Amino acid sequence: MKNSEQYTSEKREQLMQRVQMQMSERRFKHVLGVEETAIALAKKYGASPEKASIAALTHDYAKERPDDEFILVINRDGYDKELLNYGNAIWHGLVGADFVSRELGITDEEILSAIRLHTTGAAQMSLLDKIIYVADYIEPGRTFPGVKEARELALLDLDEAVAFETKHTLEHLLAQEQKIYPKTIETYNYWVAK
Amino acid sequence: MKNSEQYTSEKREQLMQRVQMQMSERRFKHVLGVEETAIALAKKYGASPEKASIAALTHDYAKERPDDEFILVINRDGYDKELLNYGNAIWHGLVGADFVSRELGITDEEILSAIRLHTTGAAQMSLLDKIIYVADYIEPGRTFPGVKEARELALLDLDEAVAFETKHTLEHLLAQEQKIYPKTIETYNYWVAK
Repeated sequence: MKNSEQYTSEKREQLMQRVQMQMSERRFKHVLGVEETAIALAKKYGASPEKASIAALTHDYAKERPDDEFILVINRDGYDKELLNYGNAIWHGLVGADFVSRELGITDEEILSAIRLHTTGAAQMSLLDKIIYVADYIEPGRTFPGVKEARELALLDLDEAVAFETKHTLEHLLAQEQKIYPKTIETYNYWVAK
Repeated sequence: MKNSEQYTSEKREQLMQRVQMQMSERRFKHVLGVEETAIALAKKYGASPEKASIAALTHDYAKERPDDEFILVINRDGYDKELLNYGNAIWHGLVGADFVSRELGITDEEILSAIRLHTTGAAQMSLLDKIIYVADYIEPGRTFPGVKEARELALLDLDEAVAFETKHTLEHLLAQEQKIYPKTIETYNYWVAK
């Protein structure tokens, strides 16, 4: 998928097949839900529906890769070694974008950034970053308490949806006593805290 | 208060007077509650009751200083400028220890560390650091929901009390949508997260 190529429905089908091979049926269904939602948000907020489609289809591309592969890349490619203290939940986006770039030939930085930030968010997020971050949270397959409010917010104010998601993700991590990646706090301090 | 001096009840009285002049009656009462609790914890866990007394009496020494004074010190003394994005809640311990050192002549690094870390905690904490961090949370004047459980934990297992306090402090900050200082997340990731 080169930047210069036109994103035809045939290209989309090819990309879908490449993605589908990397994951369980259940996860692939989630990916298609994120794509549908991301395209709708892109149309609503004036982002490129094509880029939204590509970023959504590939956001979980590396999610089922074994930890060893991530550890190898983190050690080899100059990532902060601190990242080794986290796991797949953080790696599959932040480092997974490298797999997407290398293996699928996607070089569009906007798309790669949206993949990188889709789990942690960031203080500075582009429109596409926000769309993928939020679409991942509210796609039709999600059923957690609060998802209805998140969906309503996403249609009213994308920034509010980013804030809602960030706050509730942190509450969930705390309740589960799961590790919190520092970047998630940067996201919170920027988008949620007064 | 030099390290070499003996900590007599006269010295303690002098220190109390210096501290009392810096704060409201209500805060001074809190300080005395922290001291009482910190000495009890020091005796229970084998820390120096004298150092616990001094650290407790001085932990909020700088809490009522105007923001300007902190900003001046942060800019002048090589602190990370990121600290300017926070406020008195973070500064009064982290930077307040410098005021204690400079104005009260307290140079004992164990004591200054306990003052520095009393709000945020840290991944690596000494016994005295933990005692002041926990005593500040459970002193007799505290009335928030959960304080009874925190007091019980502090008598059973100081590390568990550190974890409990850290988790509940973060929950409180999130609920209030207040800024979270990254060091607090280091404390959480080390003491709470599995």
